[in-house]
Amino acid sequence: MLPDVLSFSQYELVYNFLSLCIASMGAAFVFLLGARQNVAEKFRPALVVSAVVVGIACYHYFRIFQSFEGAYALSEGVFKSTGVPFNDAYRYADWLLTVPLLMVEAIAVLALTRDVSRPMLAKLSIAAALMIGLGYPGEITDDNTTRAIWGTLSTIPFCYILYVLWVQLNEALERQPENVQVLMRNLRLLILGTWGVYPIAYMFPFFGIEGAGAFVGVQVGYTIADITAKAGMGVMIYHIAKAKTEHEASARGAANDDVVKAEKAATVAA
Amino acid sequence: MLPDVLSFSQYELVYNFLSLCIASMGAAFVFLLGARQNVAEKFRPALVVSAVVVGIACYHYFRIFQSFEGAYALSEGVFKSTGVPFNDAYRYADWLLTVPLLMVEAIAVLALTRDVSRPMLAKLSIAAALMIGLGYPGEITDDNTTRAIWGTLSTIPFCYILYVLWVQLNEALERQPENVQVLMRNLRLLILGTWGVYPIAYMFPFFGIEGAGAFVGVQVGYTIADITAKAGMGVMIYHIAKAKTEHEASARGAANDDVVKAEKAATVAA
Repeated sequence: MLPDVLSFSQYELVYNFLSLCIASMGAAFVFLLGARQNVAEKFRPALVVSAVVVGIACYHYFRIFQSFEGAYALSEGVFKSTGVPFNDAYRYADWLLTVPLLMVEAIAVLALTRDVSRPMLAKLSIAAALMIGLGYPGEITDDNTTRAIWGTLSTIPFCYILYVLWVQLNEALERQPENVQVLMRNLRLLILGTWGVYPIAYMFPFFGIEGAGAFVGVQVGYTIADITAKAGMGVMIYHIAKAKTEHEASARGAANDDVVKAEKAATVAA
Repeated sequence: MLPDVLSFSQYELVYNFLSLCIASMGAAFVFLLGARQNVAEKFRPALVVSAVVVGIACYHYFRIFQSFEGAYALSEGVFKSTGVPFNDAYRYADWLLTVPLLMVEAIAVLALTRDVSRPMLAKLSIAAALMIGLGYPGEITDDNTTRAIWGTLSTIPFCYILYVLWVQLNEALERQPENVQVLMRNLRLLILGTWGVYPIAYMFPFFGIEGAGAFVGVQVGYTIADITAKAGMGVMIYHIAKAKTEHEASARGAANDDVVKAEKAATVAA
């Protein structure tokens, strides 16, 4: 799978995207923890989980970066494989932890009642872990049939997740304020759009897309998808929490105004 | 004890599980510190102790990871021992610190009165330290008789811990809200289930389970048990603290309603 030779610019492209990803995840980590205070208490767990997700990803991209550095050495103007393997399992270990947590943050930010959120959380996070776990055996094989079987199995929980998010969640969404509904719809589209990148890269070997170009494409593609799906999603979660905080504050303000008006009316009547 | 040769996939399996453990412990550390704000003040010490436990484990797994990397080198497609010893004492150093603290967090989250909690804490944490300390001489010996003697000695405080948690703690549990009782029973089962892994791995040499396969099994088994017993337990402690916080808030709310009702009744009577 790992190409023997990468051109100077191919190596630099992967190297710089990996570094960019470390910076982005670290930045999102600091932002999400730092901005927690700006949202109402009940939305803070969603921001903490979002911070945990980008923190885990930051750690794994450090490891992936180191592994990539060890896998190639500059020789006569190109980068040649050193024989030390490039450990792609870091990505799967990362996804195994973070993808279920992405489901947790998406549900936690809605602050639904426990009897609604708990079964939905259980379904989504188990399906997410299954999706990653079933994909891995296909990723490490050289046999396209085995790859196709595990890839197909992995697609079943993915479809189930889409079903829960698009059908089952709708009912809960209808009771949200209008701007939150729009933000949540965008969040779902972000999940669909970014998660769609992974199966495409997974299927590259079926189409005979191989060699250095394909390797670079997959690494850069995964990296951009991870930045969007984790750091981008974290920032969206923050905006949803902020919108809900403001909505509740204004609703409370309106209720207080009514009390004041009623009191005034009572005084006048007396 | 350390096998001379590990196959490529055996090495990768241990390597990736050690890394997964670093990520999990780090993630739990951030979560437990970050989510402290969401529970009432008196339960926060339990979350801080839980964070300390996974923080200590994160550090030790970094060391174990480095030690493992140094102990083997890739040569002709397999990983051969470099002669640098793999330091298993990190695990015992970790357990010596964390296992007594796991007892502390389990009791602290109940927020019992000091005269009930203090003697229980002393008994549990001393027994936990004894259990680890007595196990170590048996772990490093090559003689099965010596191993059996220290292993048996180490089992005595373990049984004592089970006695305190299952018999002595019951009385305090009965006074907890019902959902907290269920969570605490699950916590005890988690302790029993995960701590049960360690003596099984300890006894492998008695059954002649040796070589590369056994080494990989023990390392992966210890790692999964540690993730569950520490990060998993921390998350459970958070849920117990959250349930107790909500229970107390609703009890306070009900008491306030009674006051309001009484005041209204008094006004009407006047």
